[in-house]
Amino acid sequence: MVRIKKFAVVLSGSGVFDGAEIHEATLSLYVIVKNGGTYEIFAPDIPQHHVINHITGEEMSESRNVLIESARIARGKIRALHEFDAAEFDALLFPGGFGAAKNLSSFAFDGPDCKVNQDVKNAIEAMVKAKKTIGALCIAPVILAKVLGEVDLTIGQDKSTADAIEVMGAHHQLTRHGEVTIDSKLKLVTTPCYMLDANIVEIGEGAQNLVKAMMGLID
Amino acid sequence: MVRIKKFAVVLSGSGVFDGAEIHEATLSLYVIVKNGGTYEIFAPDIPQHHVINHITGEEMSESRNVLIESARIARGKIRALHEFDAAEFDALLFPGGFGAAKNLSSFAFDGPDCKVNQDVKNAIEAMVKAKKTIGALCIAPVILAKVLGEVDLTIGQDKSTADAIEVMGAHHQLTRHGEVTIDSKLKLVTTPCYMLDANIVEIGEGAQNLVKAMMGLID
Repeated sequence: MVRIKKFAVVLSGSGVFDGAEIHEATLSLYVIVKNGGTYEIFAPDIPQHHVINHITGEEMSESRNVLIESARIARGKIRALHEFDAAEFDALLFPGGFGAAKNLSSFAFDGPDCKVNQDVKNAIEAMVKAKKTIGALCIAPVILAKVLGEVDLTIGQDKSTADAIEVMGAHHQLTRHGEVTIDSKLKLVTTPCYMLDANIVEIGEGAQNLVKAMMGLID
Repeated sequence: MVRIKKFAVVLSGSGVFDGAEIHEATLSLYVIVKNGGTYEIFAPDIPQHHVINHITGEEMSESRNVLIESARIARGKIRALHEFDAAEFDALLFPGGFGAAKNLSSFAFDGPDCKVNQDVKNAIEAMVKAKKTIGALCIAPVILAKVLGEVDLTIGQDKSTADAIEVMGAHHQLTRHGEVTIDSKLKLVTTPCYMLDANIVEIGEGAQNLVKAMMGLID
């Protein structure tokens, strides 16, 4: 019997400009199940850095919680990231969206000097220690660069982000739609998605190739 | 040259319990493009009926706007529904989620006696008048029942909702995962999605079959 491969997906809110990118998150869940896996969803129980009106791009004078907003994508089935136990999962996946750079880390504001949320750091380090695969889409690979240092990653083509990744000690590879970069040593898989000017089918293709590569790295 | 088929997708917020169901919305956009179409996204510029904490299911003491929250799924590219012009589109699609029954209509509270938002009603009537196809997922078909009366629809298997649809003058057909009901006269296509106990791949299948059937009904 084939063992079902179990993914933990870490969200950072719900909406590209202040949380998880909704298409990347949804299509990641979709391809996990499509490829025979299962998922559980996590998010840190912390306030969002801010709330952005997604029409105007302007900050709204309200506050929202990352876990509660992420639950919108998760249809209510979500756990606080501090409950994450690497022993329960085969793979850890981070969709993109500014939430990865504003809530899971401070990369959007501090660049290479960013801080990474402690629950996120713990989850990544526990997976690496257990020699399990980690995937990251879009801007989320910057978190892996900050936590893990000398690893191979991609965020696509954006020069200033690629430069910041190199400053954090990682090696950036240029990629195009749907391409993945694999760090075989630490079993990391990354793909650019909306870091490129992409349509939603190209996002699905990136998520599919990433999840398939991750599945291939599961023992 | 094949003419590109243009869909208008109407959202009702962002999150299953008080807005548009995010998986249904995202996977609808995905299969529209996957099948060679394009989309524009609309939502009414009105307050949400309420805001639900998607973890606890409880109402939160804040207010949000349907158009602004829908923009999260649309990545900011969205128009107010009162700007909708049936002449610009080949097809009109309503994803599900409680937003369809709380914001686009009052079906969640008033059942067969519900009111339908005027912009939603105008859009549906304009498409029917132009003999263009309309699709609806999950609970959204109740809106078509209320506006159009004697049509063939499905919301899956739920008896009380099916009964309410019959009270509004429409005919309900029982369907299972991925199945669609087609009203050939008015070119309506409906599918149950999360009105059944479904996984995300079954949602993709329902959206795919619905969009493919709608494409077949475009002149």
